[in-house]
Amino acid sequence: MELSYDEIKLFVEEPFAFIERMGLKAIELKPGYVKLGAPLKGNENHIGSMYAGALFTLAEMPAGALYLTTFDVNRYYPIVKEMHIRFRQPARTDITAELFMTTEQAQAIQKEVDQQGKADFTLEIELQDTDGTAVVKGNGIYQLRPMAEISG
Amino acid sequence: MELSYDEIKLFVEEPFAFIERMGLKAIELKPGYVKLGAPLKGNENHIGSMYAGALFTLAEMPAGALYLTTFDVNRYYPIVKEMHIRFRQPARTDITAELFMTTEQAQAIQKEVDQQGKADFTLEIELQDTDGTAVVKGNGIYQLRPMAEISG
Repeated sequence: MELSYDEIKLFVEEPFAFIERMGLKAIELKPGYVKLGAPLKGNENHIGSMYAGALFTLAEMPAGALYLTTFDVNRYYPIVKEMHIRFRQPARTDITAELFMTTEQAQAIQKEVDQQGKADFTLEIELQDTDGTAVVKGNGIYQLRPMAEISG
Repeated sequence: MELSYDEIKLFVEEPFAFIERMGLKAIELKPGYVKLGAPLKGNENHIGSMYAGALFTLAEMPAGALYLTTFDVNRYYPIVKEMHIRFRQPARTDITAELFMTTEQAQAIQKEVDQQGKADFTLEIELQDTDGTAVVKGNGIYQLRPMAEISG
């Protein structure tokens, strides 16, 4: 099974109601690189900047998008173990988030799963406003796991 | 200005659209203690447990509720600086979060703001499922600040 661009886009933007409700958008999706965005409108807090929970979500979801474009989705799946997120500036515009990973990095993580049964990896993320200011910096510890052997 | 219970409840449950959309509920609100809850329904991820962004929000919001019940809302306001959150178990039921703070702790933080102009403080939080399992543990670094001198 190979996922098409449209399938990946749908999985990123409408995987479940929580994400749909905040209007998350896939701006760019390709192997080794993803860029997602969230609108300020509808995600404001009581003082009109983007709420921390929306920023967290925009920081967390790119890992799932990167998984879909870059890892072997037939053999592995990821979970999020920890997130550390620093709110540096009020987010007063629409916000974007990018993630990069080389093919070599992805292959090394998958190889570790094959050998060890699982592999932890850390992703650094930065969220930017439309001026390019880093409003949020964070990092997530994810774990890649093998798909269950359904054929048993 | 003294906030009534109903006013605080409204500020906690319906402060802005993001929180309303996830159905956050104030279960108990009193000086020094708050308990909030979030329904699984409507906040599920693609495998049916509560999505990390909803769990983050349930971990972050109690600090705001505690501020409203415990601090002098006429003189101070809080911001969230950092959150570190560990996802320990899948959250397969409705989830609750509690926070405690003694009057003495709150007064010491407010006194530091009066003396230093601001005060950082850390809140530890645990999210539990209906069996009492700690599905999430986290801590937030908040900063209490003085209200702007409007009368100038």
